[in-house]
Amino acid sequence: MTSIAFIGLGNMGNPMAANLVKAGHAVSGFDLIEANLATARRNGVAVAASAADAVAGADVVITMLPAGRHVIAVYEDVVPKARKGTLFIDSSTVDVDSARKAHKIAADAGMLSIDAPVSGGTGGAEAGTLTFMAGGSKEAFAQAEPVLEPMAGRVVHCGDGGAGQAAKICNNMILGISMIGVGEAFVLAEKLGLSHQALFDVASTSSGQCWSLTTYCPVPGPVPTSPANRDYQPGFAAALMLKDLKLAQEAAQSSGAVTPLGAEAAQLYGLFSAMGKGDTDFSGIIHMLRGDAK
Amino acid sequence: MTSIAFIGLGNMGNPMAANLVKAGHAVSGFDLIEANLATARRNGVAVAASAADAVAGADVVITMLPAGRHVIAVYEDVVPKARKGTLFIDSSTVDVDSARKAHKIAADAGMLSIDAPVSGGTGGAEAGTLTFMAGGSKEAFAQAEPVLEPMAGRVVHCGDGGAGQAAKICNNMILGISMIGVGEAFVLAEKLGLSHQALFDVASTSSGQCWSLTTYCPVPGPVPTSPANRDYQPGFAAALMLKDLKLAQEAAQSSGAVTPLGAEAAQLYGLFSAMGKGDTDFSGIIHMLRGDAK
Amino acid sequence: MTSIAFIGLGNMGNPMAANLVKAGHAVSGFDLIEANLATARRNGVAVAASAADAVAGADVVITMLPAGRHVIAVYEDVVPKARKGTLFIDSSTVDVDSARKAHKIAADAGMLSIDAPVSGGTGGAEAGTLTFMAGGSKEAFAQAEPVLEPMAGRVVHCGDGGAGQAAKICNNMILGISMIGVGEAFVLAEKLGLSHQALFDVASTSSGQCWSLTTYCPVPGPVPTSPANRDYQPGFAAALMLKDLKLAQEAAQSSGAVTPLGAEAAQLYGLFSAMGKGDTDFSGIIHMLRGDAK
Amino acid sequence: MTSIAFIGLGNMGNPMAANLVKAGHAVSGFDLIEANLATARRNGVAVAASAADAVAGADVVITMLPAGRHVIAVYEDVVPKARKGTLFIDSSTVDVDSARKAHKIAADAGMLSIDAPVSGGTGGAEAGTLTFMAGGSKEAFAQAEPVLEPMAGRVVHCGDGGAGQAAKICNNMILGISMIGVGEAFVLAEKLGLSHQALFDVASTSSGQCWSLTTYCPVPGPVPTSPANRDYQPGFAAALMLKDLKLAQEAAQSSGAVTPLGAEAAQLYGLFSAMGKGDTDFSGIIHMLRGDAK
Repeated sequence: MTSIAFIGLGNMGNPMAANLVKAGHAVSGFDLIEANLATARRNGVAVAASAADAVAGADVVITMLPAGRHVIAVYEDVVPKARKGTLFIDSSTVDVDSARKAHKIAADAGMLSIDAPVSGGTGGAEAGTLTFMAGGSKEAFAQAEPVLEPMAGRVVHCGDGGAGQAAKICNNMILGISMIGVGEAFVLAEKLGLSHQALFDVASTSSGQCWSLTTYCPVPGPVPTSPANRDYQPGFAAALMLKDLKLAQEAAQSSGAVTPLGAEAAQLYGLFSAMGKGDTDFSGIIHMLRGDAK
Repeated sequence: MTSIAFIGLGNMGNPMAANLVKAGHAVSGFDLIEANLATARRNGVAVAASAADAVAGADVVITMLPAGRHVIAVYEDVVPKARKGTLFIDSSTVDVDSARKAHKIAADAGMLSIDAPVSGGTGGAEAGTLTFMAGGSKEAFAQAEPVLEPMAGRVVHCGDGGAGQAAKICNNMILGISMIGVGEAFVLAEKLGLSHQALFDVASTSSGQCWSLTTYCPVPGPVPTSPANRDYQPGFAAALMLKDLKLAQEAAQSSGAVTPLGAEAAQLYGLFSAMGKGDTDFSGIIHMLRGDAK
Repeated sequence: MTSIAFIGLGNMGNPMAANLVKAGHAVSGFDLIEANLATARRNGVAVAASAADAVAGADVVITMLPAGRHVIAVYEDVVPKARKGTLFIDSSTVDVDSARKAHKIAADAGMLSIDAPVSGGTGGAEAGTLTFMAGGSKEAFAQAEPVLEPMAGRVVHCGDGGAGQAAKICNNMILGISMIGVGEAFVLAEKLGLSHQALFDVASTSSGQCWSLTTYCPVPGPVPTSPANRDYQPGFAAALMLKDLKLAQEAAQSSGAVTPLGAEAAQLYGLFSAMGKGDTDFSGIIHMLRGDAK
Repeated sequence: MTSIAFIGLGNMGNPMAANLVKAGHAVSGFDLIEANLATARRNGVAVAASAADAVAGADVVITMLPAGRHVIAVYEDVVPKARKGTLFIDSSTVDVDSARKAHKIAADAGMLSIDAPVSGGTGGAEAGTLTFMAGGSKEAFAQAEPVLEPMAGRVVHCGDGGAGQAAKICNNMILGISMIGVGEAFVLAEKLGLSHQALFDVASTSSGQCWSLTTYCPVPGPVPTSPANRDYQPGFAAALMLKDLKLAQEAAQSSGAVTPLGAEAAQLYGLFSAMGKGDTDFSGIIHMLRGDAK
């Protein structure tokens, strides 16, 4: 049994914390929203009066927050209050620069830390099957792995501090690009009189094969479990894809990488979002391409 | 044994014709280039004095030509000389409008026809493992299937006349887009200090998975058989990818489909080609993105 | 007085023909739509029973048609019926390949010809202030210039056959790109709290100056005569801009030019059009960028 | 006579400071590079031992620094040492967020401040004809205007704090987009056999007119003073255009503006820069489009 502080108990954080409780850990938690704390209480989390209180006496501190500035603010608040050698795990998806800054705050205070953003969504959080992409020292990773286990389907050590965030945004940039590409191909097929199923049959077994097509097909039919079959209810909301594509563009700009399709994909999800479609599943962008995004 | 005329005996046509000979068919062939005819002769093809001569008495006519205008020119030349009911198979990759025009020329003269472009490259042509994407009537497809068999790993009936070409350009548009996307992700990873292998390990088992990554990885290492491991010798040349992306854009423009990433991918392969890199494997575009395309 | 046949009497052709009548020329005309012929009659045009009838006995034949295929069809129909040495002027906006084909049809029959697309819209057609961009031999241009004069504010000889079309699509490609660029700048200014007038004041007198900003400003206010001040009534409809951007892309693809922003501009007008906005003025694309294209 | 501290005496700062000296002001200056200080001394600037020393006793503090982080660092250093009510003018080109932060640092310490980035390059700095785009209160602007006068051809008050930076990046985003657009048009014209001069003659007097064409034409000939006529020596280096386009993208991302052509222009200058062409004039990007960027 490990004593774990969990800060950020939203749609992702609460089911993650619940799985830690189920695994027998003592979890104290904090969130700014009362309703989230109520849920946490029901799940067996010991609700603390503040982030700092939650951290007091913890062996491990896990954060699950919306953006880099929140992570930095929480680290600046709670790291000084933690016991030396505490392991800090940040599972938020944030920009690489913030991730590195968080590692530095932890290291300067004698803490271990990893960045460990996830993929798998709320479904994966509830089922305990998230993929964690982790960045940090071998020592920190070795300590983190068993802690993450009850929440994880898979834990990958990607490299030094920030490498987890880097892996996530690189992966999701490919995902955003390929989803738009697949959407364009279906729209072109429609205009050419080629059926969805025929394109699927060819491309799914050929060089056009990709996860966006074969697991998450953006037209109803070929892949019965894809959001297209339930009126594009997320799944993974377009607004979250836009967030990740912007993080990729931020990283590209500050590191000097040239990513023309990544930039264009960010713009297209920006347009889709500006049309008021941010809470649709990200595969719904096919509607914008087709001109029926009403 | 079927009597087959094969017109267009280049890098693709010759090994395809050779496989038909091996399967026991009587193949008469024609090409404008003497060296190609010499190869054909060595492979057991009966070389004819002209396309029209090759077609005389054939049950099936197969064409493998560079572009739509060549197909139309050959059809206008030889269709009138063929026996009524002859099966015409065009395996060239051409624009959808030309494919439909070729079908009409054949139908007006009482012939059966299918468009049946291939994927698999010269390797697949030699091994007899090409994928054929076929468009045309059920009757024509039923007759074509056994003829294609000695050259094919897979034959897919995609729909009516032109559907084969449509399927090919839609598939290859996804391919071109996803290859650039994967290249951008590796370049971004490099700039962020994330190793090629770490990105591969995450994305290949996650939502960024695609054929461009897991079968044809554009950096040396993770997929030993990919062209990146042999200095980007094709494989599938960038010039051919550019050709297919332009066919997709032509089809999109004339049908009214909106394909922003497809358009951008065509431009990027255009830039790469303008740099003199058209004969590199198409995965080599990562050099342009990285700035080391010398 | 010259005897002129005018084929294609729509929104542009009719006022152009009327100005030729006013200048004292004998104009016979033809169009497929009865209402257009009625207007032409009122304007003093002698309506003919067919295109071929209109051309009989004419010194000059002017065509003003929707697309290249119409021009070719009319040329194939009427050129054989014209007197040797007749001057053919095609003022339609068509693809460069069709323009060259039309020149060839004319030249093969011993005719003179120029392509002479216009800018200036229906307003310029009515006022007789169109700009003609002409391509063809010096001799043909010398003969055409006085004929065009009553319809023209300006006539530019751009080069050999097709050069007029080339000049028009190159110009309009810059126009489409710069209009989107200016729209993006205003949207960014809005988000940053910079007023429309302040951006206009800086950019109109600085390196951002362009016709799209200073003559055709896409936000209401700074340029009182721009369509933005009359709820984006065209002016120059987005659908026509899309047509011209597609002609530019066709020319770029067939000639091998790389035009990334031109390609992207075509896609963006394609998206705007797919949203049902083709009949809005092309400056209205700012609504799509801003997310209020309802 | 005003007592002015000038921090940042590089290619821009030194000639600007020299013009203030010529106008009779007492200028104390600081820079981290000894050679810059030597030049400043020759120009009559009183060289200080540190930024803080330069500021002591000054009525006005002008900064001309590479990026936002330098401005913030200098402000945090010197604002506490300045006399209450000192006027701070930041003429660096920086991101809007940093500009606003600098204003806040100044305001919190009881100072007046404006952001006042310039256009006009080193030529304008030497000639004293820069355009200043100023953001800040009316009071601060009123005090700044006479101070800027000896360095300026034009001073525009764009709005509150940050509005100067906003105006500059919006203007330069239009500029970067239109320069690429004009370059693409010339490359397309070349492929179509249309002469540079003919395209210039048409577009410069028509709807394609823009500063990038008529003042800064990217091909030699039509505009004799443009960098294209001196082998693309800057002028305005491609690396600086890339910097400004990235600032625009940063601002767009953090404010939620959708700017597809701005994003694409940033990528294209990124590619050009990755080819080692950052120190060429930004009009030289036509070489990349044409495929002769060696």
